Amino acid sequence: MAVPFSNQAEEKGVDEGARQPGDAVRRDVRGPWKERLPEVVDVIMRTLEDRGTVGHVCTYALPHQDVIVLIINLLSRLLFPGYFGEKAMHRANLEFHLRETANIAFDLLCEEIAKCLVHAGAESSKEARERCAQEAQRHAFDLLGKFPALIDLLDGDVRAAYLGDPAATGSDEIVVCYPGFRALLIFRIAHELHVQGVPLLPRVMTEHAHQHTGIDIHPGATIGRNFFIDHGTGVVIGETTQIGENVKMYQGVTLGALSFPTDEHGDLRRGFKRHPTIEDEVVIYSNATILGAVTIGGGSVIGGNVFLTHSVEPHSKVTREGPGHRIRKMRRRAR
Amino acid sequence: MAVPFSNQAEEKGVDEGARQPGDAVRRDVRGPWKERLPEVVDVIMRTLEDRGTVGHVCTYALPHQDVIVLIINLLSRLLFPGYFGEKAMHRANLEFHLRETANIAFDLLCEEIAKCLVHAGAESSKEARERCAQEAQRHAFDLLGKFPALIDLLDGDVRAAYLGDPAATGSDEIVVCYPGFRALLIFRIAHELHVQGVPLLPRVMTEHAHQHTGIDIHPGATIGRNFFIDHGTGVVIGETTQIGENVKMYQGVTLGALSFPTDEHGDLRRGFKRHPTIEDEVVIYSNATILGAVTIGGGSVIGGNVFLTHSVEPHSKVTREGPGHRIRKMRRRAR
Amino acid sequence: MAVPFSNQAEEKGVDEGARQPGDAVRRDVRGPWKERLPEVVDVIMRTLEDRGTVGHVCTYALPHQDVIVLIINLLSRLLFPGYFGEKAMHRANLEFHLRETANIAFDLLCEEIAKCLVHAGAESSKEARERCAQEAQRHAFDLLGKFPALIDLLDGDVRAAYLGDPAATGSDEIVVCYPGFRALLIFRIAHELHVQGVPLLPRVMTEHAHQHTGIDIHPGATIGRNFFIDHGTGVVIGETTQIGENVKMYQGVTLGALSFPTDEHGDLRRGFKRHPTIEDEVVIYSNATILGAVTIGGGSVIGGNVFLTHSVEPHSKVTREGPGHRIRKMRRRAR
Repeated sequence: MAVPFSNQAEEKGVDEGARQPGDAVRRDVRGPWKERLPEVVDVIMRTLEDRGTVGHVCTYALPHQDVIVLIINLLSRLLFPGYFGEKAMHRANLEFHLRETANIAFDLLCEEIAKCLVHAGAESSKEARERCAQEAQRHAFDLLGKFPALIDLLDGDVRAAYLGDPAATGSDEIVVCYPGFRALLIFRIAHELHVQGVPLLPRVMTEHAHQHTGIDIHPGATIGRNFFIDHGTGVVIGETTQIGENVKMYQGVTLGALSFPTDEHGDLRRGFKRHPTIEDEVVIYSNATILGAVTIGGGSVIGGNVFLTHSVEPHSKVTREGPGHRIRKMRRRAR
Repeated sequence: MAVPFSNQAEEKGVDEGARQPGDAVRRDVRGPWKERLPEVVDVIMRTLEDRGTVGHVCTYALPHQDVIVLIINLLSRLLFPGYFGEKAMHRANLEFHLRETANIAFDLLCEEIAKCLVHAGAESSKEARERCAQEAQRHAFDLLGKFPALIDLLDGDVRAAYLGDPAATGSDEIVVCYPGFRALLIFRIAHELHVQGVPLLPRVMTEHAHQHTGIDIHPGATIGRNFFIDHGTGVVIGETTQIGENVKMYQGVTLGALSFPTDEHGDLRRGFKRHPTIEDEVVIYSNATILGAVTIGGGSVIGGNVFLTHSVEPHSKVTREGPGHRIRKMRRRAR
Repeated sequence: MAVPFSNQAEEKGVDEGARQPGDAVRRDVRGPWKERLPEVVDVIMRTLEDRGTVGHVCTYALPHQDVIVLIINLLSRLLFPGYFGEKAMHRANLEFHLRETANIAFDLLCEEIAKCLVHAGAESSKEARERCAQEAQRHAFDLLGKFPALIDLLDGDVRAAYLGDPAATGSDEIVVCYPGFRALLIFRIAHELHVQGVPLLPRVMTEHAHQHTGIDIHPGATIGRNFFIDHGTGVVIGETTQIGENVKMYQGVTLGALSFPTDEHGDLRRGFKRHPTIEDEVVIYSNATILGAVTIGGGSVIGGNVFLTHSVEPHSKVTREGPGHRIRKMRRRAR
């Protein structure tokens, strides 16, 4: 009888934190239940075979989240060399670093984009796969070709963060650890792939950003220059949202849809404009909610916790009406 | 004098992102402060020895978060083979894959469940540990025996997500990257372990889901078929919540407790029903808060940002009263 | 023509989850686009060279997030030995464990603090680097010297969580998996480094906590004994916030700034008191927002979703005014 305790694991000292789970020297569990495991697996197997709506055995691989995170990290190093590695980046090693990083990122991008193209085409003949592999290379090349423009755009976002946050001590701090900037960097890459028509991959990228930062920006949204999200947890920016230049927002802001019209078959209509348009120079404070295909006019300020389902003119200031709360004196609690 | 800079690290090229932190070829720090480190550790040691309330030296191991994440990933591959690996899953390798995955998941589950049982029993004699190891095997077996039902349940959740989100392009996207689905998959596994009476482990699982998605569902909650959480960040679903079938909710929804009654000793009462009951076909929009053991009648719609502490009848529509905000025109700011 | 599919990867069985992304046996992509990649990299290179505001080539390394996460894990094991490792911690191995953990944590801390000091000084001569290395050792030593006090403080926080949450089954569960406690443990370490004047590193630490838990506490905030945040996603506690003893709060609470005064050049003023003061024994329920340098008097209760921009006296109870919503009966929807 195996006793499943940790003293079975080889003593490895305090560096155990660094090793991979599952590496442990494990004795296999044995016993009556383990012996009956094959029966259980047979039933699972039959259930999977009978499964209708959700295809479970794909004849092609789906994009792999870990690889996509690695791609994002490599692309971040191309956009902001010297910020995300453990070593100092000198003039002397910069060019070598860029070339190597671009090479690896390109190869991995080709592989993951091709998977998504094959998946979208639902065809995995040798010819279809080679065609997708070719197309994936063009997509990866086009994306990297936009990096000079992305660098310029992201520099503006860093500046906007510094100008918008009294707690910021400098631009390096923003690049290294501001979640709003991290989410935006990933969004801006994903958005370009979305515009190029790459399926699935952009959403996997923004969902990684969502997981990392709590900021959920759909890759289909359009976001102008000098955008800043402070704190950011709980922000949702829907698929058809349009945001102008110099916009600032805080944690918990929702730019969402108001209603979900259905077609003649009762199915949801997809793809039509259903999220807000935010014009230039708008500030939206924490936990405000703006729903529907409304327009927030340029220069407006939307106060904290405001709930808005209609358009407002430029230079409006929208705040919660009245104090919105009742205050009464409590008797001192006995403790 | 060691100079603690990155040029001490061996040049490793751009693939440094992949290596483990701490692998660096580091020279040990030396100097007067380092020499006095043992004194500091002695004081920490004495503090730990004197510590009262929080036991710091356990005679048995606690469940290990990294292993539990690995278990969740393996179980996900059993429920949705072909979605979470890097390789395509063919008919030809499916059976081998399922058997291997089930074997490894079973062994790891036994190990972690046994730790939790020993911990709950607070007894670590050889006999107690062998008894817990046996019991852990039964629990792991019972869990896997529920997988056919879980597959059916989760397929319904995927379908609900597709029917509920106009931005969804297909069910594969939902399985691969929707956080609401990820949280629910982990919750449904954890809930079964909770129902079986496995201590601690279910909560560690749902807290991993919480960390990954921002969605905090207590493993004790009861959730019916075809449940969909969109976006999800900030959702809290408390321990005694009951949710019917075909319920949809959005980010930031709280289903929480209203008050915390204490017993005759002034200690919190634990375990009694204190969270809402949500009947079938209810929709709860973003950032709504429902507190207390109230009932939201079937078919009701709870609007965004609504704050509700009493029951509502079936087919109610609850919205924020009035516009809830004040709009005034600003003078154009000089820039 | 490389076909970038997963069947290129060596068959590795189900344990692929454990291996590092990028380890795959990959064939290099070849083709016309790949051949033109060097041109694209040249343009990126020139763009980076022209870049103005955001320095991209640092002559010294910035702190490395993965190493800082490792440091946090090591320091957690010093504060709560036996909770975060895979192995049981016995009396017999405790001292060895503490000495080894302290040694490694000290060395890594020295390295990362020194990077931050060099970065803040923007000087990387050999002399400056050696001076920073020395100073970093003093900072690391001072931090570890505060650990007995931190252990005492954190034990109080665990107790507060147990007393404040009816769903808590014991203090071990809180240490192992409560996000509010995790965020606080990291904050309390980061705050000490902040008080010592270590630049950048404290913020990188609290942003890791933010990423992990959705709780964003600036390292400059002051937080008294026995603090408890339940659930926690979306909590924001600003830089100049002061929190007394025995305070409890829930998910989504914002303690933020109300306005951002600028100096005579139109630049943001930084560092002045702009966030709330929360006195002892205050409870703040979910999604409440308190903005500005206001004071919430001792023993007050701030209700869920309250939006507050002025001070309240001790023992006030602030709730949302009226029901705050409109209920109407819907006709039963045809399905």
